[in-house]
Amino acid sequence: MNITGLFENIVKKRSFLCVGLDPEIEKIPSFLMAEKDPVFEFNKRIIDATYMYAVAYKPNVAFYECYGSKGWNSLEATVNYIKKNHPEIFVIADAKRGDIGNTSKIYARTFLENMPFDAITVAPYMGEDSIVPFLSYNDKWVVILALTSNKGADDFQYHSEDGLRLFERVLSVSQKWGTIDNIMYVVGATRAKMLEDIRKIVPDHFLLVPGVGSQGGSMEEVVRFGMNSRCGLLVNSSRAIIFADSTHNFDKVAGEKANEMHMEMERYLSGKHLL
Amino acid sequence: MNITGLFENIVKKRSFLCVGLDPEIEKIPSFLMAEKDPVFEFNKRIIDATYMYAVAYKPNVAFYECYGSKGWNSLEATVNYIKKNHPEIFVIADAKRGDIGNTSKIYARTFLENMPFDAITVAPYMGEDSIVPFLSYNDKWVVILALTSNKGADDFQYHSEDGLRLFERVLSVSQKWGTIDNIMYVVGATRAKMLEDIRKIVPDHFLLVPGVGSQGGSMEEVVRFGMNSRCGLLVNSSRAIIFADSTHNFDKVAGEKANEMHMEMERYLSGKHLL
Repeated sequence: MNITGLFENIVKKRSFLCVGLDPEIEKIPSFLMAEKDPVFEFNKRIIDATYMYAVAYKPNVAFYECYGSKGWNSLEATVNYIKKNHPEIFVIADAKRGDIGNTSKIYARTFLENMPFDAITVAPYMGEDSIVPFLSYNDKWVVILALTSNKGADDFQYHSEDGLRLFERVLSVSQKWGTIDNIMYVVGATRAKMLEDIRKIVPDHFLLVPGVGSQGGSMEEVVRFGMNSRCGLLVNSSRAIIFADSTHNFDKVAGEKANEMHMEMERYLSGKHLL
Repeated sequence: MNITGLFENIVKKRSFLCVGLDPEIEKIPSFLMAEKDPVFEFNKRIIDATYMYAVAYKPNVAFYECYGSKGWNSLEATVNYIKKNHPEIFVIADAKRGDIGNTSKIYARTFLENMPFDAITVAPYMGEDSIVPFLSYNDKWVVILALTSNKGADDFQYHSEDGLRLFERVLSVSQKWGTIDNIMYVVGATRAKMLEDIRKIVPDHFLLVPGVGSQGGSMEEVVRFGMNSRCGLLVNSSRAIIFADSTHNFDKVAGEKANEMHMEMERYLSGKHLL
Protein backbone atom coordinates (compact mmCIF):
# COMPACT_ATOMS: atom_id res chain seq x y z
CA MET A 1 0.00 0.00 0.00
CA ASN A 2 1.26 3.52 -0.78
CA ILE A 3 0.23 6.85 0.73
CA THR A 4 -2.54 7.33 -1.85
CA GLY A 5 -4.08 3.97 -1.01
CA LEU A 6 -3.90 4.75 2.68
CA PHE A 7 -5.62 8.11 2.26
CA GLU A 8 -8.30 6.60 -0.02
CA ASN A 9 -9.14 4.11 2.68
CA ILE A 10 -9.31 6.86 5.30
CA VAL A 11 -11.82 8.73 3.13
CA LYS A 12 -13.83 5.57 2.47
CA LYS A 13 -13.95 4.57 6.13
CA ARG A 14 -14.29 8.21 7.29
CA SER A 15 -11.78 7.31 10.00
CA PHE A 16 -8.07 7.39 10.76
CA LEU A 17 -8.34 4.95 13.63
CA CYS A 18 -5.66 2.38 14.35
CA VAL A 19 -6.70 -0.26 16.87
CA GLY A 20 -3.87 -1.55 19.05
CA LEU A 21 -4.08 -5.30 19.56
CA ASP A 22 -2.25 -5.74 22.87
CA PRO A 23 -3.89 -8.83 24.36
CA GLU A 24 -2.70 -8.92 27.97
CA ILE A 25 -3.78 -12.31 29.21
CA GLU A 26 -4.87 -10.92 32.59
CA LYS A 27 -7.36 -8.65 30.85
CA ILE A 28 -8.82 -11.05 28.31
CA PRO A 29 -12.36 -12.12 29.31
CA SER A 30 -12.00 -15.32 31.28
CA PHE A 31 -14.55 -17.30 29.29
CA LEU A 32 -12.18 -17.18 26.30
CA MET A 33 -9.59 -19.19 28.21
CA ALA A 34 -11.41 -22.37 27.20
CA GLU A 35 -10.53 -21.65 23.55
CA LYS A 36 -7.58 -23.40 21.92
CA ASP A 37 -5.88 -20.05 21.20
CA PRO A 38 -7.47 -17.48 23.54
CA VAL A 39 -5.26 -14.64 22.28
CA PHE A 40 -6.23 -15.15 18.66
CA GLU A 41 -9.88 -15.72 19.55
CA PHE A 42 -9.89 -12.46 21.50
CA ASN A 43 -8.29 -10.58 18.59
CA LYS A 44 -10.61 -12.18 16.02
CA ARG A 45 -13.70 -11.01 17.87
CA ILE A 46 -12.25 -7.54 18.38
CA ILE A 47 -11.42 -7.33 14.67
CA ASP A 48 -14.88 -8.56 13.61
CA ALA A 49 -16.46 -5.87 15.81
CA THR A 50 -14.18 -2.95 14.86
CA TYR A 51 -12.93 -3.35 11.28
CA MET A 52 -15.65 -1.11 9.85
CA TYR A 53 -14.36 1.79 11.95
CA ALA A 54 -10.62 1.20 11.58
CA VAL A 55 -8.09 1.74 8.80
CA ALA A 56 -5.23 0.06 10.68
CA TYR A 57 -4.40 -2.50 13.35
CA LYS A 58 -1.25 -2.51 15.41
CA PRO A 59 -0.37 -5.66 17.35
CA ASN A 60 2.41 -4.90 19.85
CA VAL A 61 4.76 -7.86 19.52
CA ALA A 62 5.66 -7.80 23.25
CA PHE A 63 2.20 -9.12 24.10
CA TYR A 64 2.72 -12.17 21.87
CA GLU A 65 6.41 -12.92 22.54
CA CYS A 66 5.59 -13.26 26.22
CA TYR A 67 3.68 -16.48 25.47
CA GLY A 68 6.67 -18.00 23.66
CA SER A 69 6.06 -20.10 20.56
CA LYS A 70 2.29 -20.17 21.22
CA GLY A 71 2.33 -16.39 21.17
CA TRP A 72 4.04 -16.33 17.78
CA ASN A 73 1.35 -18.59 16.40
CA SER A 74 -1.28 -16.17 17.75
CA LEU A 75 0.51 -13.22 16.15
CA GLU A 76 0.74 -14.97 12.78
CA ALA A 77 -2.88 -16.07 12.96
CA THR A 78 -3.93 -12.48 13.78
CA VAL A 79 -2.13 -10.75 10.91
CA ASN A 80 -3.17 -13.50 8.49
CA TYR A 81 -6.79 -13.16 9.58
CA ILE A 82 -6.80 -9.39 9.03
CA LYS A 83 -5.07 -9.47 5.64
CA LYS A 84 -7.24 -12.35 4.38
CA ASN A 85 -10.55 -10.76 5.34
CA HIS A 86 -9.68 -7.07 5.06
CA PRO A 87 -6.72 -6.73 2.69
CA GLU A 88 -7.22 -2.95 2.52
CA ILE A 89 -6.48 -2.54 6.24
CA PHE A 90 -2.96 -1.43 7.13
CA VAL A 91 -1.31 -3.71 9.68
CA ILE A 92 1.64 -2.51 11.73
CA ALA A 93 3.94 -4.79 13.70
CA ASP A 94 4.75 -2.68 16.75
CA ALA A 95 8.14 -4.25 17.35
CA LYS A 96 10.52 -1.28 17.76
CA ARG A 97 13.35 -3.26 16.20
CA GLY A 98 16.68 -1.96 14.90
CA ASP A 99 20.11 -3.60 14.73
CA ILE A 100 23.19 -3.72 12.49
CA GLY A 101 22.28 -4.08 8.80
CA ASN A 102 22.84 -7.82 8.61
CA THR A 103 20.41 -8.34 11.50
CA SER A 104 17.83 -5.72 10.52
CA LYS A 105 17.58 -7.55 7.18
CA ILE A 106 16.49 -10.67 9.08
CA TYR A 107 13.96 -8.71 11.14
CA ALA A 108 12.58 -7.21 7.92
CA ARG A 109 12.21 -10.66 6.38
CA THR A 110 10.40 -11.92 9.48
CA PHE A 111 7.76 -9.22 9.62
CA LEU A 112 7.42 -7.98 6.03
CA GLU A 113 8.00 -11.20 4.09
CA ASN A 114 7.32 -14.24 6.30
CA MET A 115 4.33 -12.43 7.80
CA PRO A 116 2.12 -10.08 5.75
CA PHE A 117 2.57 -6.96 7.86
CA ASP A 118 2.43 -3.66 5.93
CA ALA A 119 4.76 -1.91 8.34
CA ILE A 120 7.01 -2.30 11.34
CA THR A 121 7.99 0.23 14.02
CA VAL A 122 11.75 0.79 14.38
CA ALA A 123 14.00 2.62 16.84
CA PRO A 124 16.38 5.11 15.18
CA TYR A 125 19.30 5.02 17.63
CA MET A 126 21.57 2.91 15.40
CA GLY A 127 21.05 5.08 12.32
CA GLU A 128 20.70 4.57 8.58
CA ASP A 129 22.03 1.05 8.02
CA SER A 130 19.82 -0.26 10.83
CA ILE A 131 16.69 1.03 9.03
CA VAL A 132 17.24 0.86 5.25
CA PRO A 133 16.95 -2.96 5.11
CA PHE A 134 13.27 -2.51 6.01
CA LEU A 135 12.82 -0.15 3.05
CA SER A 136 13.71 -2.64 0.33
CA TYR A 137 10.18 -4.07 0.13
CA ASN A 138 7.62 -2.66 -2.31
CA ASP A 139 4.55 -1.17 -0.63
CA LYS A 140 5.91 -1.86 2.85
CA TRP A 141 6.70 0.80 5.44
CA VAL A 142 8.82 1.59 8.43
CA VAL A 143 7.42 3.65 11.25
CA ILE A 144 10.35 5.40 12.93
CA LEU A 145 10.19 6.51 16.56
CA ALA A 146 10.52 10.31 16.59
CA LEU A 147 8.91 11.78 19.72
CA THR A 148 7.37 9.15 21.95
CA SER A 149 4.45 9.52 24.34
CA ASN A 150 6.20 8.37 27.53
CA LYS A 151 7.90 10.47 30.20
CA GLY A 152 11.33 9.05 29.26
CA ALA A 153 11.11 10.86 25.93
CA ASP A 154 12.52 13.84 27.86
CA ASP A 155 15.79 12.02 28.62
CA PHE A 156 17.33 11.99 25.14
CA GLN A 157 14.83 13.00 22.47
CA TYR A 158 15.06 16.72 23.38
CA HIS A 159 18.90 16.62 23.43
CA SER A 160 19.74 19.60 21.23
CA GLU A 161 22.60 20.56 18.88
CA ASP A 162 22.61 24.00 17.25
CA GLY A 163 18.92 24.36 18.09
CA LEU A 164 18.05 21.01 16.50
CA ARG A 165 16.61 18.54 19.01
CA LEU A 166 17.32 14.85 18.58
CA PHE A 167 13.77 14.02 17.46
CA GLU A 168 14.00 16.81 14.88
CA ARG A 169 17.34 15.50 13.69
CA VAL A 170 15.81 12.03 13.38
CA LEU A 171 13.01 13.45 11.22
CA SER A 172 15.34 15.61 9.17
CA VAL A 173 17.98 12.95 8.48
CA SER A 174 15.85 9.82 8.17
CA GLN A 175 13.32 11.21 5.69
CA LYS A 176 16.12 11.06 3.09
CA TRP A 177 16.36 7.28 3.45
CA GLY A 178 12.96 6.71 1.86
CA THR A 179 9.84 8.54 0.70
CA ILE A 180 6.45 9.58 2.03
CA ASP A 181 5.25 6.27 0.56
CA ASN A 182 7.34 4.10 2.84
CA ILE A 183 8.28 6.07 5.98
CA MET A 184 6.03 7.30 8.73
CA TYR A 185 6.87 8.53 12.23
CA VAL A 186 5.70 7.86 15.77
CA VAL A 187 4.70 11.05 17.59
CA GLY A 188 2.98 10.66 20.94
CA ALA A 189 -0.35 12.42 21.44
CA THR A 190 0.96 13.60 24.80
CA ARG A 191 3.39 15.78 22.79
CA ALA A 192 0.67 17.18 20.52
CA LYS A 193 1.88 20.79 20.65
CA MET A 194 5.23 19.64 19.25
CA LEU A 195 3.37 18.61 16.12
CA GLU A 196 3.61 22.21 14.94
CA ASP A 197 7.41 21.97 14.91
CA ILE A 198 7.30 18.44 13.50
CA ARG A 199 5.10 19.47 10.58
CA LYS A 200 7.71 22.08 9.61
CA ILE A 201 10.17 19.23 8.93
CA VAL A 202 7.82 16.53 7.64
CA PRO A 203 4.72 18.29 6.29
CA ASP A 204 3.60 15.39 4.11
CA HIS A 205 4.52 12.24 6.04
CA PHE A 206 1.99 10.12 7.86
CA LEU A 207 2.35 10.10 11.64
CA LEU A 208 1.35 7.21 13.88
CA VAL A 209 0.02 8.78 17.08
CA PRO A 210 -0.33 6.68 20.22
CA GLY A 211 -1.27 8.04 23.62
CA VAL A 212 -4.80 9.36 23.04
CA GLY A 213 -7.07 8.23 25.86
CA SER A 214 -5.46 6.11 28.57
CA GLN A 215 -2.13 7.94 28.27
CA GLY A 216 -3.83 11.34 28.41
CA GLY A 217 -3.33 12.80 24.91
CA SER A 218 -5.97 14.97 23.25
CA MET A 219 -7.35 14.04 19.82
CA GLU A 220 -8.46 17.63 19.25
CA GLU A 221 -4.89 18.91 19.66
CA VAL A 222 -3.43 16.13 17.55
CA VAL A 223 -5.76 17.08 14.71
CA ARG A 224 -5.24 20.81 15.13
CA PHE A 225 -1.44 20.62 14.98
CA GLY A 226 -0.90 17.44 12.97
CA MET A 227 -3.52 16.93 10.25
CA ASN A 228 -2.49 17.69 6.68
CA SER A 229 -4.20 17.66 3.27
CA ARG A 230 -4.15 13.86 3.10
CA CYS A 231 -5.02 13.48 6.79
CA GLY A 232 -1.45 12.41 7.59
CA LEU A 233 -2.50 10.81 10.87
CA LEU A 234 -3.16 7.34 12.18
CA VAL A 235 -4.38 7.72 15.76
CA ASN A 236 -3.95 4.59 17.80
CA SER A 237 -6.14 3.42 20.64
CA SER A 238 -5.55 0.13 22.41
CA ARG A 239 -6.79 -0.38 25.95
CA ALA A 240 -9.66 2.14 25.72
CA ILE A 241 -11.21 -0.01 22.97
CA ILE A 242 -10.15 -3.61 23.47
CA PHE A 243 -10.50 -3.71 27.25
CA ALA A 244 -13.56 -1.44 27.57
CA ASP A 245 -15.56 -4.44 28.80
CA SER A 246 -14.68 -7.89 30.11
CA THR A 247 -18.02 -9.68 29.85
CA HIS A 248 -19.44 -11.79 27.01
CA ASN A 249 -20.27 -8.44 25.40
CA PHE A 250 -16.62 -7.31 25.24
CA ASP A 251 -16.52 -7.29 21.44
CA LYS A 252 -19.81 -5.41 21.11
CA VAL A 253 -18.59 -2.76 23.58
CA ALA A 254 -15.22 -2.56 21.78
CA GLY A 255 -17.15 -1.92 18.56
CA GLU A 256 -19.12 0.86 20.23
CA LYS A 257 -15.95 2.51 21.54
CA ALA A 258 -14.32 2.25 18.11
CA ASN A 259 -17.43 3.74 16.54
CA GLU A 260 -17.32 6.68 18.97
CA MET A 261 -13.73 7.41 17.92
CA HIS A 262 -14.69 6.95 14.27
CA MET A 263 -17.52 9.48 14.61
CA GLU A 264 -15.22 11.99 16.29
CA MET A 265 -12.66 11.45 13.51
CA GLU A 266 -15.36 11.83 10.84
CA ARG A 267 -16.19 15.27 12.26
CA TYR A 268 -12.55 16.32 12.09
CA LEU A 269 -12.14 15.01 8.53
CA SER A 270 -15.32 16.85 7.48
CA GLY A 271 -14.20 20.01 9.23
CA LYS A 272 -10.96 19.93 7.24
CA HIS A 273 -12.95 19.28 4.01
CA LEU A 274 -11.22 15.98 3.40
CA LEU A 275 -14.39 13.91 2.86
CA MET B 1 24.91 -12.97 38.86
CA ASN B 2 26.54 -9.72 40.06
CA ILE B 3 29.72 -8.02 38.85
CA THR B 4 31.85 -9.96 41.36
CA GLY B 5 30.56 -13.29 40.10
CA LEU B 6 31.15 -12.25 36.52
CA PHE B 7 34.74 -11.22 37.21
CA GLU B 8 35.41 -14.40 39.20
CA ASN B 9 34.32 -16.45 36.24
CA ILE B 10 36.55 -14.42 33.90
CA VAL B 11 39.51 -15.16 36.15
CA LYS B 12 38.60 -18.84 36.40
CA LYS B 13 38.13 -19.24 32.65
CA ARG B 14 41.03 -16.86 31.86
CA SER B 15 38.79 -15.42 29.18
CA PHE B 16 36.31 -12.60 28.59
CA LEU B 17 34.85 -14.18 25.47
CA CYS B 18 31.17 -13.94 24.62
CA VAL B 19 30.11 -16.24 21.79
CA GLY B 20 27.32 -14.88 19.61
CA LEU B 21 24.80 -17.56 18.72
CA ASP B 22 23.35 -16.21 15.45
CA PRO B 23 22.32 -19.36 13.60
CA GLU B 24 21.60 -18.18 10.05
CA ILE B 25 19.95 -21.17 8.44
CA GLU B 26 21.86 -20.66 5.16
CA LYS B 27 25.15 -21.07 7.01
CA ILE B 28 24.32 -24.04 9.24
CA PRO B 29 26.06 -27.22 7.99
CA SER B 30 23.60 -28.95 5.71
CA PHE B 31 23.85 -32.35 7.38
CA LEU B 32 22.16 -30.86 10.47
CA MET B 33 19.01 -30.19 8.47
CA ALA B 34 17.93 -33.78 9.08
CA GLU B 35 17.66 -33.04 12.82
CA LYS B 36 14.29 -32.27 14.36
CA ASP B 37 15.50 -28.83 15.49
CA PRO B 38 18.56 -27.96 13.36
CA VAL B 39 19.01 -24.54 14.99
CA PHE B 40 19.15 -25.94 18.52
CA GLU B 41 21.31 -28.89 17.40
CA PHE B 42 23.77 -26.46 15.81
CA ASN B 43 23.86 -24.31 18.97
CA LYS B 44 24.22 -27.34 21.24
CA ARG B 45 27.28 -28.58 19.39
CA ILE B 46 28.79 -25.09 19.30
CA ILE B 47 28.20 -24.72 23.06
CA ASP B 48 29.67 -28.16 23.82
CA ALA B 49 32.79 -27.22 21.86
CA THR B 50 33.28 -23.68 23.19
CA TYR B 51 31.95 -23.43 26.77
CA MET B 52 35.40 -23.99 28.29
CA TYR B 53 36.68 -20.85 26.55
CA ALA B 54 33.65 -18.60 27.02
CA VAL B 55 32.16 -16.69 29.95
CA ALA B 56 29.07 -15.61 28.05
CA TYR B 57 26.77 -16.50 25.16
CA LYS B 58 24.66 -14.03 23.24
CA PRO B 59 21.86 -15.35 21.03
CA ASN B 60 20.60 -12.59 18.75
CA VAL B 61 16.83 -12.96 18.87
CA ALA B 62 16.40 -11.90 15.21
CA PHE B 63 17.90 -15.20 14.08
CA TYR B 64 15.24 -17.15 16.01
CA GLU B 65 12.18 -14.96 15.43
CA CYS B 66 12.66 -15.39 11.71
CA TYR B 67 11.63 -19.05 12.04
CA GLY B 68 8.39 -18.12 13.80
CA SER B 69 7.15 -20.32 16.63
CA LYS B 70 9.75 -23.01 15.82
CA GLY B 71 12.44 -20.41 16.26
CA TRP B 72 11.15 -19.48 19.69
CA ASN B 73 11.32 -23.09 20.71
CA SER B 74 14.95 -23.20 19.52
CA LEU B 75 15.76 -20.04 21.48
CA GLU B 76 14.19 -21.42 24.66
CA ALA B 77 15.93 -24.76 24.22
CA THR B 78 19.26 -22.98 23.73
CA VAL B 79 19.14 -20.78 26.83
CA ASN B 80 17.77 -23.66 28.92
CA TYR B 81 20.58 -25.93 27.70
CA ILE B 82 23.26 -23.40 28.64
CA LYS B 83 21.86 -22.55 32.07
CA LYS B 84 21.23 -26.21 32.93
CA ASN B 85 24.71 -27.42 32.01
CA HIS B 86 26.76 -24.29 32.71
CA PRO B 87 24.85 -22.16 35.23
CA GLU B 88 27.90 -19.94 35.75
CA ILE B 89 27.86 -18.75 32.14
CA PHE B 90 26.26 -15.35 31.52
CA VAL B 91 23.58 -15.49 28.81
CA ILE B 92 22.49 -12.32 27.04
CA ALA B 93 19.34 -12.02 24.93
CA ASP B 94 20.44 -9.68 22.16
CA ALA B 95 16.99 -8.27 21.54
CA LYS B 96 17.49 -4.47 21.53
CA ARG B 97 14.04 -3.95 23.01
CA GLY B 98 12.59 -0.81 24.56
CA ASP B 99 9.03 0.52 24.73
CA ILE B 100 6.72 2.42 27.08
CA GLY B 101 6.94 1.15 30.66
CA ASN B 102 3.85 -1.03 30.50
CA THR B 103 5.27 -2.86 27.47
CA SER B 104 8.90 -3.01 28.60
CA LYS B 105 7.62 -4.78 31.70
CA ILE B 106 6.21 -7.50 29.46
CA TYR B 107 9.47 -7.77 27.50
CA ALA B 108 11.36 -8.07 30.80
CA ARG B 109 9.08 -10.86 31.97
CA THR B 110 9.55 -12.71 28.68
CA PHE B 111 13.34 -12.75 28.70
CA LEU B 112 14.30 -12.50 32.38
CA GLU B 113 11.49 -14.49 34.01
CA ASN B 114 9.88 -16.85 31.47
CA MET B 115 13.32 -17.60 30.03
CA PRO B 116 16.44 -17.80 32.22
CA PHE B 117 18.49 -15.10 30.46
CA ASP B 118 20.86 -13.14 32.69
CA ALA B 119 20.61 -10.02 30.58
CA ILE B 120 18.90 -8.33 27.66
CA THR B 121 20.16 -5.64 25.30
CA VAL B 122 17.97 -2.52 25.16
CA ALA B 123 17.84 0.62 23.01
CA PRO B 124 17.91 3.86 25.03
CA TYR B 125 15.93 6.16 22.68
CA MET B 126 12.74 6.10 24.79
CA GLY B 127 14.52 6.90 28.05
CA GLU B 128 14.23 5.92 31.69
CA ASP B 129 10.76 4.40 31.95
CA SER B 130 11.48 2.19 28.94
CA ILE B 131 14.49 0.65 30.72
CA VAL B 132 13.82 0.55 34.47
CA PRO B 133 11.27 -2.29 34.22
CA PHE B 134 14.18 -4.54 33.21
CA LEU B 135 16.06 -3.54 36.38
CA SER B 136 13.52 -4.90 38.85
CA TYR B 137 14.94 -8.44 38.76
CA ASN B 138 17.62 -9.56 41.22
CA ASP B 139 20.89 -10.58 39.57
CA LYS B 140 19.60 -9.71 36.10
CA TRP B 141 21.09 -7.06 33.84
CA VAL B 142 20.31 -4.67 31.04
CA VAL B 143 22.90 -3.98 28.38
CA ILE B 144 22.19 -0.49 27.02
CA LEU B 145 23.26 0.53 23.51
CA ALA B 146 25.75 3.38 23.88
CA LEU B 147 28.07 3.54 20.86
CA THR B 148 27.34 0.86 18.30
CA SER B 149 29.75 -0.74 15.83
CA ASN B 150 27.86 0.05 12.64
CA LYS B 151 28.29 2.98 10.27
CA GLY B 152 24.85 4.37 11.19
CA ALA B 153 26.16 5.12 14.69
CA ASP B 154 27.40 8.38 13.13
CA ASP B 155 23.87 9.55 12.34
CA PHE B 156 22.63 10.29 15.85
CA GLN B 157 24.98 8.92 18.51
CA TYR B 158 27.52 11.73 18.00
CA HIS B 159 24.80 14.42 18.09
CA SER B 160 26.26 16.85 20.62
CA GLU B 161 24.87 19.33 23.18
CA ASP B 162 27.25 21.55 25.14
CA GLY B 163 30.09 19.21 24.17
CA LEU B 164 28.24 16.14 25.40
CA ARG B 165 27.57 13.67 22.60
CA LEU B 166 24.40 11.59 22.68
CA PHE B 167 26.22 8.34 23.55
CA GLU B 168 27.95 10.18 26.41
CA ARG B 169 24.64 11.55 27.60
CA VAL B 170 23.19 8.03 27.47
CA LEU B 171 26.07 6.78 29.65
CA SER B 172 25.91 9.72 32.01
CA VAL B 173 22.14 9.73 32.54
CA SER B 174 21.36 6.00 32.43
CA GLN B 175 24.00 4.89 34.94
CA LYS B 176 21.83 6.54 37.61
CA TRP B 177 18.97 4.13 36.88
CA GLY B 178 20.85 1.13 38.27
CA THR B 179 24.27 0.04 39.46
CA ILE B 180 27.44 -1.55 38.11
CA ASP B 181 25.82 -4.83 39.18
CA ASN B 182 22.91 -4.58 36.77
CA ILE B 183 23.81 -2.23 33.91
CA MET B 184 26.38 -2.72 31.19
CA TYR B 185 26.83 -0.92 27.88
CA VAL B 186 27.32 -1.86 24.25
CA VAL B 187 30.38 -0.21 22.73
CA GLY B 188 31.43 -1.37 19.27
CA ALA B 189 35.04 -2.51 18.81
CA THR B 190 35.12 -0.39 15.65
CA ARG B 191 34.92 2.63 17.97
CA ALA B 192 37.70 1.41 20.27
CA LYS B 193 39.46 4.78 20.56
CA MET B 194 36.26 6.25 21.98
CA LEU B 195 36.67 3.88 24.91
CA GLU B 196 39.05 6.41 26.45
CA ASP B 197 36.23 8.98 26.61
CA ILE B 198 33.71 6.34 27.66
CA ARG B 199 35.87 5.15 30.57
CA LYS B 200 35.88 8.73 31.91
CA ILE B 201 32.09 8.46 32.38
CA VAL B 202 31.72 4.78 33.30
CA PRO B 203 35.09 3.63 34.69
CA ASP B 204 33.67 0.61 36.50
CA HIS B 205 30.85 -0.69 34.31
CA PHE B 206 31.17 -3.79 32.18
CA LEU B 207 31.07 -3.16 28.44
CA LEU B 208 29.78 -5.62 25.87
CA VAL B 209 31.97 -5.18 22.80
CA PRO B 210 30.83 -6.56 19.45
CA GLY B 211 32.61 -5.96 16.16
CA VAL B 212 35.98 -7.64 16.73
CA GLY B 213 36.86 -9.76 13.70
CA SER B 214 34.33 -9.79 10.87
CA GLN B 215 33.32 -6.16 11.49
CA GLY B 216 36.96 -5.03 11.62
CA GLY B 217 37.50 -4.03 15.27
CA SER B 218 40.82 -4.63 17.04
CA MET B 219 40.99 -6.61 20.29
CA GLU B 220 44.30 -4.98 21.18
CA GLU B 221 42.77 -1.50 21.04
CA VAL B 222 39.66 -2.58 22.92
CA VAL B 223 41.83 -3.89 25.74
CA ARG B 224 44.18 -0.91 25.74
CA PHE B 225 41.40 1.67 26.03
CA GLY B 226 38.65 -0.33 27.71
CA MET B 227 39.99 -2.83 30.26
CA ASN B 228 39.67 -1.92 33.94
CA SER B 229 40.68 -3.51 37.23
CA ARG B 230 37.89 -6.11 37.03
CA CYS B 231 38.39 -6.63 33.31
CA GLY B 232 35.18 -4.71 32.53
CA LEU B 233 34.91 -6.23 29.06
CA LEU B 234 32.92 -8.95 27.38
CA VAL B 235 34.20 -9.21 23.81
CA ASN B 236 31.73 -10.85 21.48
CA SER B 237 32.54 -12.92 18.45
CA SER B 238 29.84 -14.60 16.38
CA ARG B 239 30.49 -15.48 12.75
CA ALA B 240 34.27 -15.84 13.12
CA ILE B 241 33.68 -18.70 15.57
CA ILE B 242 30.38 -20.36 14.76
CA PHE B 243 30.74 -20.29 10.97
CA ALA B 244 34.50 -20.92 10.76
CA ASP B 245 33.78 -24.28 9.14
CA SER B 246 30.73 -25.88 7.51
CA THR B 247 31.76 -29.55 7.45
CA HIS B 248 31.11 -32.31 9.99
CA ASN B 249 34.01 -30.75 11.90
CA PHE B 250 32.30 -27.38 12.33
CA ASP B 251 32.07 -27.68 16.11
CA LYS B 252 35.69 -28.77 16.49
CA VAL B 253 36.86 -25.82 14.36
CA ALA B 254 34.60 -23.46 16.32
CA GLY B 255 36.25 -24.74 19.49
CA GLU B 256 39.69 -24.06 18.02
CA LYS B 257 38.73 -20.52 17.04
CA ALA B 258 37.26 -19.87 20.49
CA ASN B 259 40.43 -21.26 22.08
CA GLU B 260 42.55 -18.90 19.95
CA MET B 261 40.56 -15.94 21.23
CA HIS B 262 40.72 -17.31 24.78
CA MET B 263 44.53 -17.57 24.55
CA GLU B 264 44.80 -14.02 23.26
CA MET B 265 42.53 -12.84 26.08
CA GLU B 266 44.56 -14.79 28.65
CA ARG B 267 47.66 -12.88 27.56
CA TYR B 268 45.88 -9.55 27.99
CA LEU B 269 44.51 -10.51 31.40
CA SER B 270 47.98 -11.65 32.50
CA GLY B 271 49.55 -8.49 31.11
CA LYS B 272 47.19 -6.42 33.24
CA HIS B 273 47.93 -8.62 36.30
CA LEU B 274 44.34 -9.72 36.64
CA LEU B 275 45.03 -13.47 36.83
